[in-house]
Amino acid sequence: MIVGMRTGATPEEVDGVVQRAKSLGLDVQLNLGTDKTVVALLGSNTGQLSTDIFAVLPGVEGVTRIMKPYKLAAREFKAEDSLVSINGIEIGGKRIVVMAGPCAVESEEQLMEAGRVVKEAGAYILRGGAFKPRTSPFSFQGLEKVGLELLARARERFNMPVITEVVDPHDVSLVSKYADILQVGSRNMQNFALLTSIGRSKCPVVLKRGFSCTVTEWLTAADYLLAEGNNQVILCERGIRTFEDSTRFSLDISSIPVIKRASHLPIIVDPSHASGHYSLVPAIAKAAVAAGADGLLIEVHPNPKEALVDGLQSLTPSSFAKLMEELRSVAKSVGRYI
Amino acid sequence: MIVGMRTGATPEEVDGVVQRAKSLGLDVQLNLGTDKTVVALLGSNTGQLSTDIFAVLPGVEGVTRIMKPYKLAAREFKAEDSLVSINGIEIGGKRIVVMAGPCAVESEEQLMEAGRVVKEAGAYILRGGAFKPRTSPFSFQGLEKVGLELLARARERFNMPVITEVVDPHDVSLVSKYADILQVGSRNMQNFALLTSIGRSKCPVVLKRGFSCTVTEWLTAADYLLAEGNNQVILCERGIRTFEDSTRFSLDISSIPVIKRASHLPIIVDPSHASGHYSLVPAIAKAAVAAGADGLLIEVHPNPKEALVDGLQSLTPSSFAKLMEELRSVAKSVGRYI
Amino acid sequence: MIVGMRTGATPEEVDGVVQRAKSLGLDVQLNLGTDKTVVALLGSNTGQLSTDIFAVLPGVEGVTRIMKPYKLAAREFKAEDSLVSINGIEIGGKRIVVMAGPCAVESEEQLMEAGRVVKEAGAYILRGGAFKPRTSPFSFQGLEKVGLELLARARERFNMPVITEVVDPHDVSLVSKYADILQVGSRNMQNFALLTSIGRSKCPVVLKRGFSCTVTEWLTAADYLLAEGNNQVILCERGIRTFEDSTRFSLDISSIPVIKRASHLPIIVDPSHASGHYSLVPAIAKAAVAAGADGLLIEVHPNPKEALVDGLQSLTPSSFAKLMEELRSVAKSVGRYI
Amino acid sequence: MIVGMRTGATPEEVDGVVQRAKSLGLDVQLNLGTDKTVVALLGSNTGQLSTDIFAVLPGVEGVTRIMKPYKLAAREFKAEDSLVSINGIEIGGKRIVVMAGPCAVESEEQLMEAGRVVKEAGAYILRGGAFKPRTSPFSFQGLEKVGLELLARARERFNMPVITEVVDPHDVSLVSKYADILQVGSRNMQNFALLTSIGRSKCPVVLKRGFSCTVTEWLTAADYLLAEGNNQVILCERGIRTFEDSTRFSLDISSIPVIKRASHLPIIVDPSHASGHYSLVPAIAKAAVAAGADGLLIEVHPNPKEALVDGLQSLTPSSFAKLMEELRSVAKSVGRYI
Repeated sequence: MIVGMRTGATPEEVDGVVQRAKSLGLDVQLNLGTDKTVVALLGSNTGQLSTDIFAVLPGVEGVTRIMKPYKLAAREFKAEDSLVSINGIEIGGKRIVVMAGPCAVESEEQLMEAGRVVKEAGAYILRGGAFKPRTSPFSFQGLEKVGLELLARARERFNMPVITEVVDPHDVSLVSKYADILQVGSRNMQNFALLTSIGRSKCPVVLKRGFSCTVTEWLTAADYLLAEGNNQVILCERGIRTFEDSTRFSLDISSIPVIKRASHLPIIVDPSHASGHYSLVPAIAKAAVAAGADGLLIEVHPNPKEALVDGLQSLTPSSFAKLMEELRSVAKSVGRYI
Repeated sequence: MIVGMRTGATPEEVDGVVQRAKSLGLDVQLNLGTDKTVVALLGSNTGQLSTDIFAVLPGVEGVTRIMKPYKLAAREFKAEDSLVSINGIEIGGKRIVVMAGPCAVESEEQLMEAGRVVKEAGAYILRGGAFKPRTSPFSFQGLEKVGLELLARARERFNMPVITEVVDPHDVSLVSKYADILQVGSRNMQNFALLTSIGRSKCPVVLKRGFSCTVTEWLTAADYLLAEGNNQVILCERGIRTFEDSTRFSLDISSIPVIKRASHLPIIVDPSHASGHYSLVPAIAKAAVAAGADGLLIEVHPNPKEALVDGLQSLTPSSFAKLMEELRSVAKSVGRYI
Repeated sequence: MIVGMRTGATPEEVDGVVQRAKSLGLDVQLNLGTDKTVVALLGSNTGQLSTDIFAVLPGVEGVTRIMKPYKLAAREFKAEDSLVSINGIEIGGKRIVVMAGPCAVESEEQLMEAGRVVKEAGAYILRGGAFKPRTSPFSFQGLEKVGLELLARARERFNMPVITEVVDPHDVSLVSKYADILQVGSRNMQNFALLTSIGRSKCPVVLKRGFSCTVTEWLTAADYLLAEGNNQVILCERGIRTFEDSTRFSLDISSIPVIKRASHLPIIVDPSHASGHYSLVPAIAKAAVAAGADGLLIEVHPNPKEALVDGLQSLTPSSFAKLMEELRSVAKSVGRYI
Repeated sequence: MIVGMRTGATPEEVDGVVQRAKSLGLDVQLNLGTDKTVVALLGSNTGQLSTDIFAVLPGVEGVTRIMKPYKLAAREFKAEDSLVSINGIEIGGKRIVVMAGPCAVESEEQLMEAGRVVKEAGAYILRGGAFKPRTSPFSFQGLEKVGLELLARARERFNMPVITEVVDPHDVSLVSKYADILQVGSRNMQNFALLTSIGRSKCPVVLKRGFSCTVTEWLTAADYLLAEGNNQVILCERGIRTFEDSTRFSLDISSIPVIKRASHLPIIVDPSHASGHYSLVPAIAKAAVAAGADGLLIEVHPNPKEALVDGLQSLTPSSFAKLMEELRSVAKSVGRYI
């Protein structure tokens, strides 16, 4: 951590910083520049200290981190790629894992039809929401427990692992009975009570990026899961909020190589929520694979026109099958397969 | 709701939209322009319908809302200003209510000293966090139940109502035993399980704006509280995330007059979290009062240099006392008082 | 254009809107809903009218566009893809055109070495800046006319077309003598004096997206070029400004399919400025090709460590050659070639 | 400047950084922490060096500035507030200077009526645009030279200084003959050719903030004006682009106290462009004064319903007169006057 003093800071002010650092067990090195004094603080845990501790002291102009605030999710903590194994399928390896299915579980008929078509087209994991966080209380909120039971039935019928969202910390043990992977939605990325509960469950988890959270905050949220001993963590980029209004969110394609440098965790991409429109999903999905994503989470609905939630961003069975063909070709071009 | 058809849409495609609308009980009016057909959908609840229902149909180019998605929070639903009464103090009237205190309850000594100085300077309500949502699992997480007990003691000692944050839906009944106002933090604005639980408690609540949520989403989140019969809702602007990096967040000062037009709910401002730096708090606080805010939520710490959380944005007792003097003057200039 | 009246608007207020519309030669259709009156305005040029004309009238709550404000750049204006031909190379067809070279022309030696290596690796067009818009007046501002002459020499030596930036409307005729393609930088996307001057020159032009401009504004800026009769317009996505701070800008990968739907103009991508770091360039470049971009604009420097401008985002000759190999493979996977 | 080396960087890599720094005349101090080596670079002009020079070297993880990139605009360069004097009126002192008038000069009648009403209500300076930068080429572009002549006539008639925008570097000498203050619009904040030309003219100038530029970039742009010897620089906050869509832009109220700390230049606020709607202008204008702004730039039109440009954000004569009364009261409450 680097503490920059104001021009004209007094020796007493500099000493105040030095004493505070020493009281926290840090080593200190002073750089007495011609214009400004800079105090470097050294220690193995400075990434986890708040910069405010020093910024608030008299004579200080600003404090800069050198160490990142996340620790367990960092590649410096673990150099080799982490693999998350789901029923023998490895996420984070050469295979690009496609998870597909409807946004919300609506009925047995809808879910079974969705399961059938995504399985046929080559998806490995079935997605479907039972608990739906909706912006308005007047919208459909999901089938809840009934939805979980339908998911379990589809899992058995198609022999596919299942991923579904959990929104309340007290539902984690219930949901993990029915699902192979828990999903933390974008609006819950910093719901720390939920993260802690999932961390303790040790259940594999997809941590979606908060739509207004930085990569650094995302990896720091992953630390909540990892700190509880849950190493089965998969990151999911799903678009960030920007000023652009032709898409619902702006997929941050660069986050893929950034994460690959900064972290050992696998990363998948959700092109459906990012774009908000089915016509944009194929281009974004192909881009994600070319950029190095380890998997995709795609919304497919047997009949998007009748969908209760997010029909506009769902692919039809035939357009999904066509996309899978294209994705196989792109995956091969970057040395991977689906 | 207005459905714009693509140039060259067929009569069958237009009819598809009309039939879907009629199946939902809506009235339909067709505008057959020279270039494009536009279908207007009329009905009293179109604000609560998803635009996707129509956007997904063949031949549709785009769908535009005319009605807002929120309902109970809208001024059209209730024309006169709502007042929230806390121990006889009304929020939303002529008096500007100042809530002040430390970010986190750290110890009895710290809280009592804080209570004493903010009471003396003229704050009406004492703030203090017992449950702290922190971005890193390695940071101080709050005193939790012990913190609540300290708050209750301070409430009694200084005869001041108390506001504190709740982060888990299952803690609502516990926290509302100790606190006069529950606070929903920015990261939980769309934690719908939490909102529903607080809505049912009927306890007065401050709903902080999600730092990346629009005003429309904010008022729609308020609908979750109102829909459960809790009318004691106070909005709190606390800054939004933008590209600007000289402040932690960018206070959206315009949201105050926007909310006053769009909603009947009172709105207060948190200048401390918005700016992230004590030196900016006074200017922002005065601006908020001049712009029409009904109250302020200000961090004050007996000794910011020793604060465990957010010391950098906390005012000292003397700077808070000075600010209160200045605020009285600004309040008077806009026909209000503190 | 759709004019939504306030709840409770008077018949006189509705009539005011109708009369204003008729005075502008528009057709009008009234939707008298139960809650709100909505006035639809019909005509072939409503996209070019300001919404303010109606929003300012008494009783109006809001005005919504159905038609886009751009016209000549719209796919509705011209259905088939536009091709821009540079010395017989077509941009916008099956071939993906790579433009590469140094950010700034620094010396004859540097430019010739850069030209040699990018030619060898398979780039078709040489880039290099002679006029550099720099955020600080104390930074290197480019070699200006000397730089143009060096570019002309490299063009001849390597038989490669040349692209370079122009920043002043009065330099357009000078620069177009030396360059095959003019580049409008991100900070000048809405420099309308410059756009008009380039439009009149009829010289092929790459119009970079303003880093905070929407796709709609970008296409409306293209209308400035097209309106002067210059049809040789290539769009270039180069990243937008967001809150994310791990990259210099956030490449808006979705803008590629969005542009392909909305416009007939070709679009290329600049992965170098978007990311700001050489290590991220390959992933973003491959993603752009997979998403459907028609070309790439990549910074390559013979010795990035000695670069005067933007060395950090420049590829070395060997990493560029390696990337070209990878791009060929990705291009093939989506049915194109380099 | 602080160079952080990667964990495991070799002594040769560290030495590479040290040698590069020494070759640029910088002093170097090494911090050999347990985990990472950090190299501090010391010298009086490190703020003007690009961080890329070091970031590109092998073994470097990141480079952080301690010094700001702007120099002449910094309060460290000049401690006391700068005052800009316009016909004996000082901007930056106790008086809050109001500049008001129509967005665009439309006709003699319109301008004279506007001049009369803003003068009567207490504005000191008349604004009016002759050259209008418009997003679409099909919109009204301003009266240009005729507009300048009308402004000169109004200046004489009402004995009011006049401010107007200049958009082309080659028009600076023309426009400065007619106007007392030149205005650089938001889209031209980084039009460096224009800034240099205005810098040379020594004419007083209002530099509007680019709607997507940081405070740091804004002050660095001011350096372009100051570096040419023009000290008559007034900054103008006019809102930044964010995701919020209830206002056209989001006024960054915090930039006022941030600028007051970081710079000696006066700052005014444009509440009209920030909000885009007349009903929001009064609240924002009052907030700006309470936050410490030195002046306001407000759009007033004799008949907003007939305005050719931006009628929606223009105040009527009567609402402007009412606002001026309110502003006098707020100004007094913070120890200033109008």
